[in-house]
Amino acid sequence: MKNKINITCILVDRANYGRLKPVLQLINKDSCFDLKIICTGSMLLERYGNTSKVVKNDGLKIFDEVYIELEGSNPTTMAKTIGLAIFELTNAINRTTPDFVIVIGDRSEALGAAIATVYQNYCLIHIQGGEITGSIDESARHAITKLAHYHFPSTDNAAKNIIRMGEHPSRVFNFGCPSADVVDASNDDFKSYSLDLGVGKLIDWDNPFLLVLFHPVTSEFEDAETQMNELLYSIKEIDIQTVIIWPNIDAGSDGVSQSIRKFREENIGFNLHAYKNFEPEIYIPLLKRTACAIGNSSSFIRGASFIGTPVVLVGTRQDGREISDAVIRVNPLKSEITKAARYQIEHGHYSPSQIYRKKGSS
Amino acid sequence: MKNKINITCILVDRANYGRLKPVLQLINKDSCFDLKIICTGSMLLERYGNTSKVVKNDGLKIFDEVYIELEGSNPTTMAKTIGLAIFELTNAINRTTPDFVIVIGDRSEALGAAIATVYQNYCLIHIQGGEITGSIDESARHAITKLAHYHFPSTDNAAKNIIRMGEHPSRVFNFGCPSADVVDASNDDFKSYSLDLGVGKLIDWDNPFLLVLFHPVTSEFEDAETQMNELLYSIKEIDIQTVIIWPNIDAGSDGVSQSIRKFREENIGFNLHAYKNFEPEIYIPLLKRTACAIGNSSSFIRGASFIGTPVVLVGTRQDGREISDAVIRVNPLKSEITKAARYQIEHGHYSPSQIYRKKGSS
Amino acid sequence: MKNKINITCILVDRANYGRLKPVLQLINKDSCFDLKIICTGSMLLERYGNTSKVVKNDGLKIFDEVYIELEGSNPTTMAKTIGLAIFELTNAINRTTPDFVIVIGDRSEALGAAIATVYQNYCLIHIQGGEITGSIDESARHAITKLAHYHFPSTDNAAKNIIRMGEHPSRVFNFGCPSADVVDASNDDFKSYSLDLGVGKLIDWDNPFLLVLFHPVTSEFEDAETQMNELLYSIKEIDIQTVIIWPNIDAGSDGVSQSIRKFREENIGFNLHAYKNFEPEIYIPLLKRTACAIGNSSSFIRGASFIGTPVVLVGTRQDGREISDAVIRVNPLKSEITKAARYQIEHGHYSPSQIYRKKGSS
Amino acid sequence: MKNKINITCILVDRANYGRLKPVLQLINKDSCFDLKIICTGSMLLERYGNTSKVVKNDGLKIFDEVYIELEGSNPTTMAKTIGLAIFELTNAINRTTPDFVIVIGDRSEALGAAIATVYQNYCLIHIQGGEITGSIDESARHAITKLAHYHFPSTDNAAKNIIRMGEHPSRVFNFGCPSADVVDASNDDFKSYSLDLGVGKLIDWDNPFLLVLFHPVTSEFEDAETQMNELLYSIKEIDIQTVIIWPNIDAGSDGVSQSIRKFREENIGFNLHAYKNFEPEIYIPLLKRTACAIGNSSSFIRGASFIGTPVVLVGTRQDGREISDAVIRVNPLKSEITKAARYQIEHGHYSPSQIYRKKGSS
Repeated sequence: MKNKINITCILVDRANYGRLKPVLQLINKDSCFDLKIICTGSMLLERYGNTSKVVKNDGLKIFDEVYIELEGSNPTTMAKTIGLAIFELTNAINRTTPDFVIVIGDRSEALGAAIATVYQNYCLIHIQGGEITGSIDESARHAITKLAHYHFPSTDNAAKNIIRMGEHPSRVFNFGCPSADVVDASNDDFKSYSLDLGVGKLIDWDNPFLLVLFHPVTSEFEDAETQMNELLYSIKEIDIQTVIIWPNIDAGSDGVSQSIRKFREENIGFNLHAYKNFEPEIYIPLLKRTACAIGNSSSFIRGASFIGTPVVLVGTRQDGREISDAVIRVNPLKSEITKAARYQIEHGHYSPSQIYRKKGSS
Repeated sequence: MKNKINITCILVDRANYGRLKPVLQLINKDSCFDLKIICTGSMLLERYGNTSKVVKNDGLKIFDEVYIELEGSNPTTMAKTIGLAIFELTNAINRTTPDFVIVIGDRSEALGAAIATVYQNYCLIHIQGGEITGSIDESARHAITKLAHYHFPSTDNAAKNIIRMGEHPSRVFNFGCPSADVVDASNDDFKSYSLDLGVGKLIDWDNPFLLVLFHPVTSEFEDAETQMNELLYSIKEIDIQTVIIWPNIDAGSDGVSQSIRKFREENIGFNLHAYKNFEPEIYIPLLKRTACAIGNSSSFIRGASFIGTPVVLVGTRQDGREISDAVIRVNPLKSEITKAARYQIEHGHYSPSQIYRKKGSS
Repeated sequence: MKNKINITCILVDRANYGRLKPVLQLINKDSCFDLKIICTGSMLLERYGNTSKVVKNDGLKIFDEVYIELEGSNPTTMAKTIGLAIFELTNAINRTTPDFVIVIGDRSEALGAAIATVYQNYCLIHIQGGEITGSIDESARHAITKLAHYHFPSTDNAAKNIIRMGEHPSRVFNFGCPSADVVDASNDDFKSYSLDLGVGKLIDWDNPFLLVLFHPVTSEFEDAETQMNELLYSIKEIDIQTVIIWPNIDAGSDGVSQSIRKFREENIGFNLHAYKNFEPEIYIPLLKRTACAIGNSSSFIRGASFIGTPVVLVGTRQDGREISDAVIRVNPLKSEITKAARYQIEHGHYSPSQIYRKKGSS
Repeated sequence: MKNKINITCILVDRANYGRLKPVLQLINKDSCFDLKIICTGSMLLERYGNTSKVVKNDGLKIFDEVYIELEGSNPTTMAKTIGLAIFELTNAINRTTPDFVIVIGDRSEALGAAIATVYQNYCLIHIQGGEITGSIDESARHAITKLAHYHFPSTDNAAKNIIRMGEHPSRVFNFGCPSADVVDASNDDFKSYSLDLGVGKLIDWDNPFLLVLFHPVTSEFEDAETQMNELLYSIKEIDIQTVIIWPNIDAGSDGVSQSIRKFREENIGFNLHAYKNFEPEIYIPLLKRTACAIGNSSSFIRGASFIGTPVVLVGTRQDGREISDAVIRVNPLKSEITKAARYQIEHGHYSPSQIYRKKGSS
């Protein structure tokens, strides 16, 4: 069919793939569209769980793999990686001859993908713009909004923000966050999945466990290791078995990883199991089952809010983002984290919030 | 003095330097500041008049010269040049240890400079944001606004736009366009300057002359040569001696240059004198003296509006920008250009407009 | 046919294409091979005659076009262009899934292509290695030799040098320089080609003319403009109509071009016609017909030697290369050039030399 | 002193720093020289032990740190890293205004450094060229030789090879391998150093231990994990406590690391202690004390040969290099490794060989 619409989707990290997955599967099935997926950034790297393999396992074909991460884990290498993203993605996008290019979220690599798209006169669709969060991620998110031609924000407030920024209302579509569909579709029986791929002691899924995911804050990258230490020793104090996920690739991630590695060597008896990555089908049940989620992942704001998971939000990374009642904000200090986590574990689940959700948003 | 404030200014093309020059000279004289200028983009290239030499001649010291232009003059090389800008400017900015980094305008290279600044946690000042113009330049301008920390727009409308986009009013300062000061300072006696550096027949400055500056429109880069042909053969029809300036480095500039070169070879008798570049002290008097300015330079919208120069604005490049009465918009077609230019030559100078000006804005 | 051998040929400039053309046409016709041509470097640039169009006109399909030239014309941008060559050609080469990659000569971009090939474990064939010439080109040529797996040098001495450098004799094949075949095939009736595409006065082909091609010497790039001035004012003194070809893209080429442009403006009456580029079918007859070739093109050493054209070899660029009797070496000084050129014009053609030739080398 | 000679040394990995260290310390002390060290490549990365910190601890000042490693661990990212090396090191080298640039060995990053040096017309000194080893490293080593101006090979054969390749004998200086001086200077009392920084069980230094260092072979990068598995399960069979060092950054290193990580998780009781890196003062005593060195590090060929350490050389990485009697070559198969290692452990130390040594070579 020569009349198919060419849609190119650029995936830059595992979290964003998790959110987009149901949309991509629908596009892929639709005979009107020819979907071409470009995997880049940390999705290709062993250290971050090589999420591109998950994409393949989900039945989606990868059109191109583009390596852009300059190793170093500091603000300079992070900025340069944006430069490499633009440099490399121009070619990759050209080869897909797209009618539309889809980019999601606010990562630095996504900003690079957006520039490579619009300066080559292709039409850019941005998913999950408009949210207010208060860090460099917010700047990148809004900059992508100003470059994009069509917008699919996740909340009504985000949609209003995008329109206030001057985008035409006819080009702003609020269908909610597609990850809500992943939550609905997810199965509680996650024990049937193979959960023994990480390193460290195995978790006893019939007993309470904590879920930890803490990313470095770019503007505080030199404090990343110290902040993670506070978090880990707080967990040791609480003394409940813990599932931990390695951080993403931002400046400071080497510090966070270093902290986890040292903690494991120095606390060999402690029941901490570290995973590189989860497929959404496993991650959502974990969010449902955990006694408390601790860290600063945006999934603790979105996914967790649909579910009512008690959350301890550590540090400044999500400042400004709309949060539900289930979330307690604390500074990255052991005493504050411990206190808040004990309160949340005691409290148990909250009622689900509708901030980020609409039915059938995909 | 260890308490000096380090200000780094990144200059990416001659037009922007022209506008910033009075500001830079004031900062340079002020003992509170340590000004470091980084020249990059077409400012370093022979083909574009090597404006970095002009900066030196103006008594400003250049801290670093950074080559980033990937030759090719098409959308792909233009996008990749942004990648190289980020890649190279990260290092250059680091070496200036800035308290503030200044970027002006909307060029693709300026977007790269903005990203290299904010992802390394430096404080970014953006000059001349907020204007509505309708091309990729507008997207870049607004994207820089969303990345910047302080804003110095040139018009009240632009300031309002920036605030509407979510920037805090306390960080938006409208002091007008500093190029207005260049206009005030300029001398009518421009014949004392050496004006014989270009190629082609010399202009007789005591008789009427046209002033032509036409840049390629990125999204129409394949039509650039045709559009310029229409313009040039319109001038031939009008048959008045003409000062022409080579275009900037955007995708399509090779086409515009090619058109000029062929026209000169095929019309050897015609009095067309081509210049790579003018210093502001010469350019402004030219704008004052020309019988009509034809093309799509933004100086025809700003500088010319302070003066009342009759302008024929050709094509879509400045769509959306606020224009004064002195400007007639036409399509890039010989007949339309000729008709409008003849009207403007007949009409003569207009009253100066105040849209873009405030006294002493520097 | 799945058993075809994939051959990828990387073309980086017009001179090398001229030499390889007969080989490429033979490979292209042969049903055993699947030839994929990658055009890069100055072959894609308007300023250097966009030789990739010539390749297409010769009936060869171009598989990929890769832009790598960082504008600036100095040693730093030249070195960085090698970096970009490696960076960009890795992808391009991968997409051709080659059994063999062909690279010719000694240009910096060819060194980049060689590295991109061998570090990805592809098999590299190098054409015209082993020659001794005494500049950075010689270093690059030998470095490529040490990276390559098979060698096709042009002279017996070159073959001996390659073997002495440690390459196994069974992998060194001396079939002569394929450009000899171009010379044989060329037609004297070049007036039938369209020769009026350059800029400047038309040449009267029935009268004697000089042929000038002078490239900058990288290690003397700051003297390039002065050296070219000496050459041009020597020609003015000799006062014979002159065909001049713009230089290649090495550091200093902006200086050479600037010199030509200024000379033309300052000597409007003088009969100097400047061309960006010639197809081999036109260039060889020009070499046959010129009264004297002046400059430092390697074609004056190779092609001219088959023919017996009188040559004045200016400066150090070909130091160390084997030369025939028809060549007089001079320093880049007006007096020396004039004296030697007058001698050569007087002398007329020499007997053809066999240094660089073998029958049917393609 | 304005008459100081500026020497720039580019360090690209820990092994090469180990060899150059005594030379650098001598240059640093000498008042005739101004030494500027540029650290790049894996020397800056946490995963590879951040050797730049060791340089600082040794009292040497680092002039610049240049990040160039594109993450991905495959031949394409390895080739691209050479591109980035050239691109980034051009600037860094320029800022040192060198009279001489020193590069050592054969790594891909060193080839990039060599190109960035010579294309900018700086004088290049190459250390440890001329050796025959049979992989891409040999190609790179000889290519650097052909680019360099002065040569300091480590063996007489290497010096002969360099001269045979056409380099002038007056520019080839054979002072032996400076690492020999490190061996002489090293102290047997290495237990006083802090040796507990790695991960895994502590080694009992009073009992026999194996020393393992296995780098991926670029052209076999897809087999890296399998080969390392064979080696590790051979060690498990031999069942002696083992010091293991993580591999260098070549294509395939992720596979080797993955193999080590899995082995550790699956054999928690086994006494394997993994280190990122050793300073030469610790590494040499380890080489002296180990019951057998197993792997393919070039230090097993050089350093070990001065000492007489029994070595099992696994796989093709050092094919062609001159080896002493103390070395047994095997294929990367568990059975062969086990058999050879048992023989070597039984045999004990050999007499030191003089192949790579001269007194006071620094």
